[in-house]
Amino acid sequence: MDEDEKNPGFGLKVNAGIEQPSQINPDAIDKIKRRKAVNLHSDEYLKGIVSGDRTILARAITLVESSLDDHRKSAGQLIEKCIPYSGKSIRIGITGVPGAGKSTLIEALGKLLTLKGHKVAVLAIDPSSEISKGSILGDKTRMEELAVDRNAFIRPSPSAGTLGGVARKTRESVLLCEAAGFDVIFIETVGVGQSETAVHSMVDFFLLVLIPGGGDELQGIKRGIMEMADAILINKAEGENIHRANEAKQNYTNALHLMPPSHSGWIPLATTCSALQNQGIPEIWDMILKYSAFTKANGYFDRRREEQDVKRMRKTLQEELSRLFEQTEGMAELIRQAETDIQHKRVTSYSAAYNLINEFIMRTSK
Amino acid sequence: MDEDEKNPGFGLKVNAGIEQPSQINPDAIDKIKRRKAVNLHSDEYLKGIVSGDRTILARAITLVESSLDDHRKSAGQLIEKCIPYSGKSIRIGITGVPGAGKSTLIEALGKLLTLKGHKVAVLAIDPSSEISKGSILGDKTRMEELAVDRNAFIRPSPSAGTLGGVARKTRESVLLCEAAGFDVIFIETVGVGQSETAVHSMVDFFLLVLIPGGGDELQGIKRGIMEMADAILINKAEGENIHRANEAKQNYTNALHLMPPSHSGWIPLATTCSALQNQGIPEIWDMILKYSAFTKANGYFDRRREEQDVKRMRKTLQEELSRLFEQTEGMAELIRQAETDIQHKRVTSYSAAYNLINEFIMRTSK
Repeated sequence: MDEDEKNPGFGLKVNAGIEQPSQINPDAIDKIKRRKAVNLHSDEYLKGIVSGDRTILARAITLVESSLDDHRKSAGQLIEKCIPYSGKSIRIGITGVPGAGKSTLIEALGKLLTLKGHKVAVLAIDPSSEISKGSILGDKTRMEELAVDRNAFIRPSPSAGTLGGVARKTRESVLLCEAAGFDVIFIETVGVGQSETAVHSMVDFFLLVLIPGGGDELQGIKRGIMEMADAILINKAEGENIHRANEAKQNYTNALHLMPPSHSGWIPLATTCSALQNQGIPEIWDMILKYSAFTKANGYFDRRREEQDVKRMRKTLQEELSRLFEQTEGMAELIRQAETDIQHKRVTSYSAAYNLINEFIMRTSK
Repeated sequence: MDEDEKNPGFGLKVNAGIEQPSQINPDAIDKIKRRKAVNLHSDEYLKGIVSGDRTILARAITLVESSLDDHRKSAGQLIEKCIPYSGKSIRIGITGVPGAGKSTLIEALGKLLTLKGHKVAVLAIDPSSEISKGSILGDKTRMEELAVDRNAFIRPSPSAGTLGGVARKTRESVLLCEAAGFDVIFIETVGVGQSETAVHSMVDFFLLVLIPGGGDELQGIKRGIMEMADAILINKAEGENIHRANEAKQNYTNALHLMPPSHSGWIPLATTCSALQNQGIPEIWDMILKYSAFTKANGYFDRRREEQDVKRMRKTLQEELSRLFEQTEGMAELIRQAETDIQHKRVTSYSAAYNLINEFIMRTSK
């Protein structure tokens, strides 16, 4: 294949910068598996996906997760073909401290939903999966019943070099799952780095899961996440903890009421449940349905998705421009020097930035 | 003057993009005034500023606010000379809904501080000042006593085309005020667009001012501001409102306690005052002193300033790169088309962004 055919929509220079293939060990392990997976033409993938074939869906997601150049080309073609079939779902983000019981909650909600005739997909964003050798998120062993449910589909987080790469693969997997008929998509994350912000930017409803403490339930959660949440769920409201859970519910309800309304007009709720004892689970789904109806009626639902997509494009543009900039010869060292100059109060942020831009213009204009 | 001399540190192409001088009417009106102001050489400005000459400080800030090319050159030189004299202050951001009594509060705090021997500067960020024909922020008629205090310096918001421009001029004015010996700098803003975020990014302490309501005190404040605040102040705790003010104080204290700790380790407080009746004002200053001592002891104070400056440089770089990108011939139309394609679900955000980058690379490589 010549250069253009390899990457019709992706300049090779740009592509090489994104994935950093040499850093991704699991790819080497899976390489043989994946080359086998590419045997299908994108039209065959599409046919299988749209007919609801879970095996083909899984292979397609593996294709999307691959960093190999020919896979990226095929994946790009497939995703574009799937877009018209996508979108008919509700996308629910779930975050919370480790130990909050997210997996148990997703299992309980998932079972309720498949019983109601829904098709439920569970994805995850866990950029630390590389380090922890396999993510505990989206772990089928923690969702045993859902894992064997014909109408549920569980996928662990892609392992990748960067949060940006993981987020992109997840967004694309959402489209594939929706094209395959999954109408409830859970995206789970823990509070690592900026992963909550990444999940928040790709879902319709963002759920924060806490466990009853003594007012310190948000320990371990990043600041700003509380004001992002569409609902706060106090899990493990069972046994000795029921009283503390109700107290926490009251405290968070009060706090949420003090906050300014979100753009949707929806007032975030705090509620309790016990995923383990299957208590309070239908109420969570009812709340999400209410949110969905409310925001579809006032147009916010679609508007939010549109804004997310346009924002994602602009952010990707900025990231790629920054990458081109930093990869221009000599610029990385100049940037480091500029930061040192700023820290030693030799220049202002602005003059340092403008000097760097001028250097860049000079070096790229020769 | 030849091209290089006009803009030694600023590529003309870059500079022309920032200020959009043709949009700034007040400059035409002030043009004569400003050309007069440029009569001083930057060394003379520096001498006057460092000796605490308020008239020269005012003229220097006028110079910094000017968009004229020769002024920008002189301003750049002056600012660089002032940097070694800057930084010895505490920078306090003040935001709140219109009518919260920010001006009265700044007057009360300012008077307390000048009595204690401090030198107090009051700046403002109000990007709407262009529209409202003069900002109500930093309005001397609302701070009558402080306006005639020899140890206070009040400056209304620069009027400018963009928040970015206003924010930059304000940051640079902060450096000039500090070089002139002002050791307490207030920066006031209202909740217009992203101005709170801009102020938060240039201060040491961020104060949110509310008035007692029925739990709706944050109406009109953007989401996310509450978690940015280092303290919440319930003003107008007087007369019939004392009870509601104390209730609000309790509610916000509870809410703030639920939130995760900030990176500084400081637990934000909620407190009441009546700026009009001069009640609770020394307590506010004591709290700020506590914050200052606490964060200087654990290193957070300096670290935060350093991070703000480095972040500002990186953001300015991104903004300038985006501008170069959008100003490249034909790109603006392609970007608009890409957004339409995304909204009509013809392409993903990622493929749209990569296509645009490739177009850009092609057009700039010819």
